Amino acid sequence: MALIVHKYGGTSMGSLDRIRLVAEKVKKVYDEGHSLVVVVSAMSGVTDSFVNKAKELNDDPPEREMDLLMSAGERESAALLAIALNKIGVPAESFTGRQIGMVTDSMHTKARIKRVTGEKLRETLTARKVPVVAGFQGVDEKSGSVTTLGRGGSDTSAVAIAVAMKADVCEIYTDVDGVYTTDPNIVASARRIDRISFDEMLEMASLGAKVLQIRSVEFGKKYDMPIYVKSTFVDGNGTLVTSEVKEMEDVMVAAVAYDRNQAKITVAGVPDRPGIAATIFGRVAEKEINVDMIIQNVSENGLTDISFTVPKNEVKKAVAQIESINKDIGARGVIADDKIGKVSVIGVGMRSHSGVAAKTFKSLADAGINIMMISTSEIKVSCVVAADEVDRAVRILHEAFELALPPNERSYKTVKK
Amino acid sequence: MALIVHKYGGTSMGSLDRIRLVAEKVKKVYDEGHSLVVVVSAMSGVTDSFVNKAKELNDDPPEREMDLLMSAGERESAALLAIALNKIGVPAESFTGRQIGMVTDSMHTKARIKRVTGEKLRETLTARKVPVVAGFQGVDEKSGSVTTLGRGGSDTSAVAIAVAMKADVCEIYTDVDGVYTTDPNIVASARRIDRISFDEMLEMASLGAKVLQIRSVEFGKKYDMPIYVKSTFVDGNGTLVTSEVKEMEDVMVAAVAYDRNQAKITVAGVPDRPGIAATIFGRVAEKEINVDMIIQNVSENGLTDISFTVPKNEVKKAVAQIESINKDIGARGVIADDKIGKVSVIGVGMRSHSGVAAKTFKSLADAGINIMMISTSEIKVSCVVAADEVDRAVRILHEAFELALPPNERSYKTVKK
Repeated sequence: MALIVHKYGGTSMGSLDRIRLVAEKVKKVYDEGHSLVVVVSAMSGVTDSFVNKAKELNDDPPEREMDLLMSAGERESAALLAIALNKIGVPAESFTGRQIGMVTDSMHTKARIKRVTGEKLRETLTARKVPVVAGFQGVDEKSGSVTTLGRGGSDTSAVAIAVAMKADVCEIYTDVDGVYTTDPNIVASARRIDRISFDEMLEMASLGAKVLQIRSVEFGKKYDMPIYVKSTFVDGNGTLVTSEVKEMEDVMVAAVAYDRNQAKITVAGVPDRPGIAATIFGRVAEKEINVDMIIQNVSENGLTDISFTVPKNEVKKAVAQIESINKDIGARGVIADDKIGKVSVIGVGMRSHSGVAAKTFKSLADAGINIMMISTSEIKVSCVVAADEVDRAVRILHEAFELALPPNERSYKTVKK
Repeated sequence: MALIVHKYGGTSMGSLDRIRLVAEKVKKVYDEGHSLVVVVSAMSGVTDSFVNKAKELNDDPPEREMDLLMSAGERESAALLAIALNKIGVPAESFTGRQIGMVTDSMHTKARIKRVTGEKLRETLTARKVPVVAGFQGVDEKSGSVTTLGRGGSDTSAVAIAVAMKADVCEIYTDVDGVYTTDPNIVASARRIDRISFDEMLEMASLGAKVLQIRSVEFGKKYDMPIYVKSTFVDGNGTLVTSEVKEMEDVMVAAVAYDRNQAKITVAGVPDRPGIAATIFGRVAEKEINVDMIIQNVSENGLTDISFTVPKNEVKKAVAQIESINKDIGARGVIADDKIGKVSVIGVGMRSHSGVAAKTFKSLADAGINIMMISTSEIKVSCVVAADEVDRAVRILHEAFELALPPNERSYKTVKK
């Protein structure tokens, strides 16, 4: 018999009827004799309603107070699911993050898990009961204050619990049935991926983040805990996120992802002297702004342009930082452009297959799509294009790499380096 | 400078505007230089909504789970008030019952407070901050589970905290401006009482319980912590509940209370032999049913009738208990009557003034109201009357003891034993 962690998100817990449905799913696994830990998010809408109330009272609410406020939602849903389980004969007890020993650092609203002690979980499982855990929350070991793990933190709670309890698998139930080769809203023929590596999932960024919180994938990777993403509402297979296995390399490209939340900042006409990039990015880093891609143009007349991308909501801060040092660096100007998008081709198969980058650039060029910036990693090729070209670029690349076909029918399958 | 505990109930916390109003009241006291601990209930409607959801999922929800569920409401309101206070420049931090060390026994949904350790409260006050505490909840010291103190439990939280912190006074802010000589909905000329003793407040039962949870009064009495009941919405005086002082004795009757939640059970034609009452009430006590008044009629032909009152919602259980032993006691029948009400005249002045009982009976008799049962204590005379006579009986007694007048203008004021 296995030890399995189930996690149900806000949509899955979104009404009393859905909570009953979740209870039935848990009962089925329990009745098969498996041991289960269930981790839940707040009922959908609850956390938003807390945030709205707080913002109405105070446009800058203290983060410590926000954490206590927001943690209330998962307590409600955990208790309700335990109540529903007991009704159908499954002995269940609900627990808060603190009660199961979800110990975090002191970074309110985005705390990091330090450890999961889990004594209560072990006791409860030994008594052949189902612990239902309020996700998203922990306790700061220094102050004893309630912390939360950031949006989507319940995924991370679930994986961390699975690791601490040495579970066989962590199953994340959500409103989609897995991870797709690209966004099905853009490409109707997008295909569910049966199995994807942690690294690929991490590179998928926003596309993957719609399905799993990125940090939960990092956790899964670090401790080699397989994460199975499944639909709460449709029976059937989902996507298994695991460490890399040989077969994954046979697939040249796993998915095409995109990100519309980036903006491009260009520092134009900078004197091309040593240390100038360090000065600029040091200044940006002071404000903890996440810089993604960086491009420095070829120097002309001793002047160069430096372009980089940052999250859209940090553009203002980033520009202000650079303008504050402009009399030192003497740039001609700082230009922000948020009408861009990033399109990425991802696959661990790139390590063994050649030509992915070339094929990507050629496909976009043939379609007349201008590439503004390029960055690559071992398993990803990303291109910045105009915002209104993102959808078309995704469709072209999905088609070019034949992602609508089953992996073994794709023509690039056997092309080896 | 004083140390004051403020408690705000669900109606006072019932909307964001009201929370802002509460924040202003707290700020005023804080700005005067006093130290404050604020205890809050859930926003009105929240706890009911939790109960409704739970009952819809499970008609008999486990009490442990109910407690975790219900405790979420006070967390929300405590965090929101702390957020509102910070907005207007009052440094405030919200705390759960556990965080302030509200330790209880294991009786879920009606836990009793064992102690309040209060370290976090002391730290917070020392830092000249205002702790905002989620009322109604504690932690079971054995299991670490969340417990709740029963309906109205936030009053008890507040008084217990006031005792633990050695506060000067515990101020309970609510939607009425104090305790009245009777229910103003029945007698329009009912008068706010400036000062009432703990004992009188306890005897007022349901009338007083609308204003303060009975257990909070017991706590106040036990530790001699004055409780000041005031209106959140109307400035002005309220009612101070304190230990008895000499002046209270000058008032013959403080208030007229009533209780419509009792039912009468008559065990008819019981053989009048020693031990029969013990058999009956022993059996009733087995189910922890609270028996209030007991009357045994004069025996006729060796048979007697025994009547007693129990809370309406326990009538069925009580009747079943007696019927289960009827072949032993050989009663002619067990008759339940829930069309009754109890009217009580209350005042510590009765200890020194004579004639209160006589005047009570005569006033009711003159009005043609039949008294079914009588019970008296040192400071109370209670009569059971027909349910549809309760309002009239209250009016008659309120008039008879001149309770609409200020105490020093009443004619019975100077009548001494």
